[in-house]
Amino acid sequence: MAELRQNIATREWVIIASERARRPNAYAEASNRIRTHERHEHDPACPFCVGNEELDLEVCRDPEDGPWTTRVVRNKYPALAHDGSLARVFNGVERRITGIGYHEVLVEHRLHNATLALMTDEEVRDVLLMYRRRGQQIASDTRIEQIVFFKNHGERAGASLPHAHSQIIGLPIVPGNIRHRIEEARRFFDDTGQCVFCTMLNDELISGERIVAINDHYVAFVLYASSSPFHIWILPRHHRASFLNASDEEMMHLAPLLRDVLFRLYSHLNDPDYNMIIRTTPTKEPENGYFHWYIAIIPRLSRSAGFELGSGVWINPALPEQCAAFLREEPQA
Amino acid sequence: MAELRQNIATREWVIIASERARRPNAYAEASNRIRTHERHEHDPACPFCVGNEELDLEVCRDPEDGPWTTRVVRNKYPALAHDGSLARVFNGVERRITGIGYHEVLVEHRLHNATLALMTDEEVRDVLLMYRRRGQQIASDTRIEQIVFFKNHGERAGASLPHAHSQIIGLPIVPGNIRHRIEEARRFFDDTGQCVFCTMLNDELISGERIVAINDHYVAFVLYASSSPFHIWILPRHHRASFLNASDEEMMHLAPLLRDVLFRLYSHLNDPDYNMIIRTTPTKEPENGYFHWYIAIIPRLSRSAGFELGSGVWINPALPEQCAAFLREEPQA
Repeated sequence: MAELRQNIATREWVIIASERARRPNAYAEASNRIRTHERHEHDPACPFCVGNEELDLEVCRDPEDGPWTTRVVRNKYPALAHDGSLARVFNGVERRITGIGYHEVLVEHRLHNATLALMTDEEVRDVLLMYRRRGQQIASDTRIEQIVFFKNHGERAGASLPHAHSQIIGLPIVPGNIRHRIEEARRFFDDTGQCVFCTMLNDELISGERIVAINDHYVAFVLYASSSPFHIWILPRHHRASFLNASDEEMMHLAPLLRDVLFRLYSHLNDPDYNMIIRTTPTKEPENGYFHWYIAIIPRLSRSAGFELGSGVWINPALPEQCAAFLREEPQA
Repeated sequence: MAELRQNIATREWVIIASERARRPNAYAEASNRIRTHERHEHDPACPFCVGNEELDLEVCRDPEDGPWTTRVVRNKYPALAHDGSLARVFNGVERRITGIGYHEVLVEHRLHNATLALMTDEEVRDVLLMYRRRGQQIASDTRIEQIVFFKNHGERAGASLPHAHSQIIGLPIVPGNIRHRIEEARRFFDDTGQCVFCTMLNDELISGERIVAINDHYVAFVLYASSSPFHIWILPRHHRASFLNASDEEMMHLAPLLRDVLFRLYSHLNDPDYNMIIRTTPTKEPENGYFHWYIAIIPRLSRSAGFELGSGVWINPALPEQCAAFLREEPQA
C-alpha cells in the first residue's frame, strides 16, 4: 500500500505511490540519447565556448591570467538589474520592490562537452570555489537578502544552453519558501535544542538504507520523503548555516563526493536532466544553531500537475530505499 | 525595469521580468495545433467514452437513470487507497501514515471532444455540482483532512487522457502548503480584522486593470503577483471558507463566469494547456472570517527550473495588466 511521508526538516508531505512503483532502472533515459560527453568539444555558436567570450558581460574569471578554468558572466537577459536603488511600494494589493539584484552565470568549464559528473575532482572543486567566491562578493552588497545558487542540466530542467553552467541569483528579499524552512528548523531547535538537519543526518547514518555516498565531511542520501525519484540531499557533517562560510578544506572534500553522486546518476540513469540547488541562510542572518546549508539534486524524471500545484504534495512513484540501493551499485565506467 | 511583486494573501514573491516581456498574443499556441473541439466525438479506445464505462470503478453518476451527463470513477491507478485504517509512525526521520484516501476522476462530459470552455452554462454547472456533491461525501469520511479538486488540461499540464475530466483527491493530512496559506490569512485577519481575499477582491475591483470577467457573485482577475503568464484567480464575492458550503445559486452563477474565462483563454491563446485548482479550507475546519475559497487557473506557458525549485520565486515574463487587457478583448467566435 502507498504511504504518505513527511520530511522532518521542511514538514512537507509526499505520497510514495508504491502501487505505481517501477523498478529504479526503469527511470534510465532512453539509451539512444546523445549524452553530454558525446557532443563536440567546441561549438562556434556557443557564447560560453572559448573564443566567444563576451567580455563586457564578464564579472570575474579564474585564473585571472592565461586560459581560464571558470568564469562568471552577467546573464544577457537578466531577470534583475544590479544598478539602481531599492524602492518599495506597500499599498493594499500592490506590494512591490524595484527589480534590483544579481543574475549571473557561472561557466563551469572551457570545453563544450564537459559536465560535472565527468570532470576531475579539481575541476569540480574550482566550480565550488567560484560559487563561494562570487557568493561572498554579492553578499557584501547590502541591498541583497538572499542568494540562490542553482544549476539546470538539460532541457527538461530548464537549461537553454548545453555548455555546462550554473546560475547565481541575488535577491533583495527573503522568499517565503526559504522563510518557512528556516522557521520550521527554528521550531525544531526550540523544542529539542538540536538542528533538525543534524538529526536527519544522524538518523540516515544509523539506518544506512538511503545513503548514496559518504566521506568524512559529507553525506549524500536519497530523501526519506523524496518528492520525485532519486531526489538527493548532500549534507555537510559540520553544522553551519551558510555555504559562504564553508572552509577551503570542506570544499576540497565536497568536490569528490558531489562528482561521485552526479557520476552515479549519469551512469545509472543515462545522463538524466536534473536541477541542483545550494540552499543557504539569508545573507544577513548570522550563523546559528538551527539552519544548516545543503545541496539538493532533483533529477527531472516526473512532472508536476494540478495536484502538486494545488497541494504542494508530490506523488513519487519510486521507493527511496530502492533508488538508493540502485545508486550504490558500482557504476559502469 | 523588472520588479518584484508580493501576493498579499500568500506573501509569495514573483519577479515580473518586464525586460524579457513579450506581447500577450505571443503566448498563443501554434495555430496548427489540433484543438480540443477538432477531435472526434467518440474514441473507441477511451475509457471515459460512452460504451466503455468501467462500472466496477464507478462511484456515482448524474443522472442516475438514462444517459449520464457526468460521472465520478475511482482512478484505475490510485495514489491512495480508500480501504484500511490510518496508522501513523512518528520516529525521528521516519514520519509516515498509511496511504489512505480518495483518488477519483470526474468525467465532465459524454463527448470525447467536449471541453469546459465550449460547454453550455448548464453543462459547466453540472460539473461544479458534481465536484461539490462528491466533495461533501468524501468530507464525511472522518479519516480525511483535506480535499484537493484539480484539472489537468493538455499534456503539458499533466493530462494523460484527452477526454475532459477533473480529479478529486482526499488526503488524511493537511499539506504544509495549504497550512501556510491559512496561517498567512489568519495573521492578516488578526492584524486588520478583515479577510485578505475580500481585501484583494475590493482592491482589484477599484483598480479594474487586472479584471478579466465579473458578475454579481464572482470576480475573475489576473493576479497582481502572477507566477506565470495569465495566472488567474476567480474569487466569490460572498465570504466563505469552504467550497463545499457554496449554495446552489452560487454554483449557478459561477458556471457562466468560469466558462467565459476559459473560453477567453481558449480563443485568445488557442486552447492552451492549463491546470485549474479549487482551493478550499480543510474538511474539519469550520467556516471562519479569514479563509476564502477560490479557483486558480494556471496556463502552462512557462516552466519551472532550478531557481523556482530553490526559492519558490517564479520569474514571469508577462505583465499581468497587459494579460488582463488582452483577455478582455472580445473573443472571436
